[in-house]
Amino acid sequence: MNRVTGSVRIVGAGLIGTSIGLALKKIGVDVAIDDVSPANQRLAIDYGAGRKPAAADEPALIVVCVPPDVTARTVLAELRTFPNSVITDVASVKNSILEELSAADAPLARYVGSHPMAGRERGGALAGRADLFFGRPWVICANPKSAAASTLLVEQLVLDLGGVPSRLTAADHDRAVAMVSHLPQLVSSLLAAQLTRAEQSDLALSGQGLRDTTRIAASDAKLWMQILSGNTADVRDALQGFAEDLTRVIKSFDNLDAPGALSDLGEVLLAGNRGVALIPGKHGSAATNYAQVVVMIDDKPGQMAKLLTEIGEIGINLEDLKLEHSPGAEIGLVELFVLPEVESSLVAALTERGWRLAG
Amino acid sequence: MNRVTGSVRIVGAGLIGTSIGLALKKIGVDVAIDDVSPANQRLAIDYGAGRKPAAADEPALIVVCVPPDVTARTVLAELRTFPNSVITDVASVKNSILEELSAADAPLARYVGSHPMAGRERGGALAGRADLFFGRPWVICANPKSAAASTLLVEQLVLDLGGVPSRLTAADHDRAVAMVSHLPQLVSSLLAAQLTRAEQSDLALSGQGLRDTTRIAASDAKLWMQILSGNTADVRDALQGFAEDLTRVIKSFDNLDAPGALSDLGEVLLAGNRGVALIPGKHGSAATNYAQVVVMIDDKPGQMAKLLTEIGEIGINLEDLKLEHSPGAEIGLVELFVLPEVESSLVAALTERGWRLAG
Repeated sequence: MNRVTGSVRIVGAGLIGTSIGLALKKIGVDVAIDDVSPANQRLAIDYGAGRKPAAADEPALIVVCVPPDVTARTVLAELRTFPNSVITDVASVKNSILEELSAADAPLARYVGSHPMAGRERGGALAGRADLFFGRPWVICANPKSAAASTLLVEQLVLDLGGVPSRLTAADHDRAVAMVSHLPQLVSSLLAAQLTRAEQSDLALSGQGLRDTTRIAASDAKLWMQILSGNTADVRDALQGFAEDLTRVIKSFDNLDAPGALSDLGEVLLAGNRGVALIPGKHGSAATNYAQVVVMIDDKPGQMAKLLTEIGEIGINLEDLKLEHSPGAEIGLVELFVLPEVESSLVAALTERGWRLAG
Repeated sequence: MNRVTGSVRIVGAGLIGTSIGLALKKIGVDVAIDDVSPANQRLAIDYGAGRKPAAADEPALIVVCVPPDVTARTVLAELRTFPNSVITDVASVKNSILEELSAADAPLARYVGSHPMAGRERGGALAGRADLFFGRPWVICANPKSAAASTLLVEQLVLDLGGVPSRLTAADHDRAVAMVSHLPQLVSSLLAAQLTRAEQSDLALSGQGLRDTTRIAASDAKLWMQILSGNTADVRDALQGFAEDLTRVIKSFDNLDAPGALSDLGEVLLAGNRGVALIPGKHGSAATNYAQVVVMIDDKPGQMAKLLTEIGEIGINLEDLKLEHSPGAEIGLVELFVLPEVESSLVAALTERGWRLAG
């Protein structure tokens, strides 16, 4: 069942390392797990993510899962300690690590960086789970000196973990994540930071739009400082583009009656419309527009189950579902998302069964 | 059952006007609905949102539900045509409308502005629904000349529609929405606009963070130009604060090794953490941290219903629920949010029933 043969050594017993260990052990791979903190290591071992390393270990593959700022030096130490092992890391920046390794004249044939696009809001071994990578993109960044066999082995690991491997250069990877991950994080943090200056009573008018745009601003600040520190040039470029557009918008607000001011504002809003449309849909395919059906239910146990039982009976698959409570209300709204071609039959069947639909 | 007595005249048969009409008719209020577009008006009437206005109409209350840029002049015309009616409007900016009415020497005793904090991504009469305002905040902005009876009547309307009335001055309202609604909209649009410059292949790495932060960038650009045009000073202030922080962040990226650079970056990320924590929870109370329980289910009809049926049997109320599909996977993750005090009993009961929990 497993593609990776031989033993795997994991360095770093946090969320990612523990999750990799859990998943590999499940398919029968021998896993040793190490951590600079004996307590973390013990926790991960108790949790079932691997065994203690032994002096005689000769791992086929080493996965370095330590914080971004110590990844390069840890990879380097592993390359030297284990002269026959292939080594990958999982840091969310890739180019600065490769540069540090090159500068140290590391044996790069055995190194292939990678980045699983998975994570949770909680970190640590206890948040680890074997399915963390299931169906998630996992970028593999071979360097020009990586041996083909090294790259292949890392790809086998990703497949063993249920991830979806894709190959990019370190530079392309870093440019991509600057845009789709690092810029959104900073913008969300900057937006949420403004709220600290607002009157608390003003925040009583907060709606879903504010909640969505600021959700990721709750992320771990320390981890993000490390990530961003490792991708300064690309992040700066992305921020600069944002700042130029922002400056134009602010200028338009100085006098919206000035020639061109309103159209500058409109252009940003329309470009925003176009930008959203470019984001691939949940299933990794082209952006999909699901049909939405809104049902009102009593906000008490069993109501939603009844609704979903009946949808199961009707035989329609839900693509997504959102539950919306109104503040202080006894009623919840359930937004059901289905493929457009089944919308009308779902509406008809739910109506026939007496559900209250919106509209 | 209805608090508002006498007939109500609605001007503007879009989403809000139609929804108000539907809700009022449901509780037996006589509603006349008007629109500059005969087609829109006919649609709303067919839809059950009211009758055609008659020459003899003497409405107790008039609700102006037209786009923001024509709200003031419409309110003015209604005040003049109906010298005994109380008039409110539902535009999402309030101060500029009040100023325009003051400048035109309108009879302000009979005018009370208001703003229902409700909306949908789709507009138009066909998106209208009687429960649109249920449990939602609805700000009432009496002006210094508003008669107490006028304000009371608008408040009765809000209560009749199931909304949660709160009173603010027009200036306080506009400052609040600049922060919690207008700034997030512009920031989201600016962020999504950057994606139009990205390589399409880079966007393949998009995750939930990018989706959440850019969701509202898909909003109607024309409507938002009107809203923003009506609140320029407050929006500009909010943008300016954001821009100053952004400038500091960009500067820190010029050289993260410079003294203070890293701490400037860290301060923004930490301020973002604090800002998110200030947003009131879904139930309008202080921010609540729900406990999260993640369950893996097969991605096919009936599975989620089975899960929720059993949660109903266990007798635990869900505060929120999120369904997460992995791209290409046959497995879905259901994130259940419950009050922290019931988390452990939910985990125990689900485990006993054989559900696969994360971790």
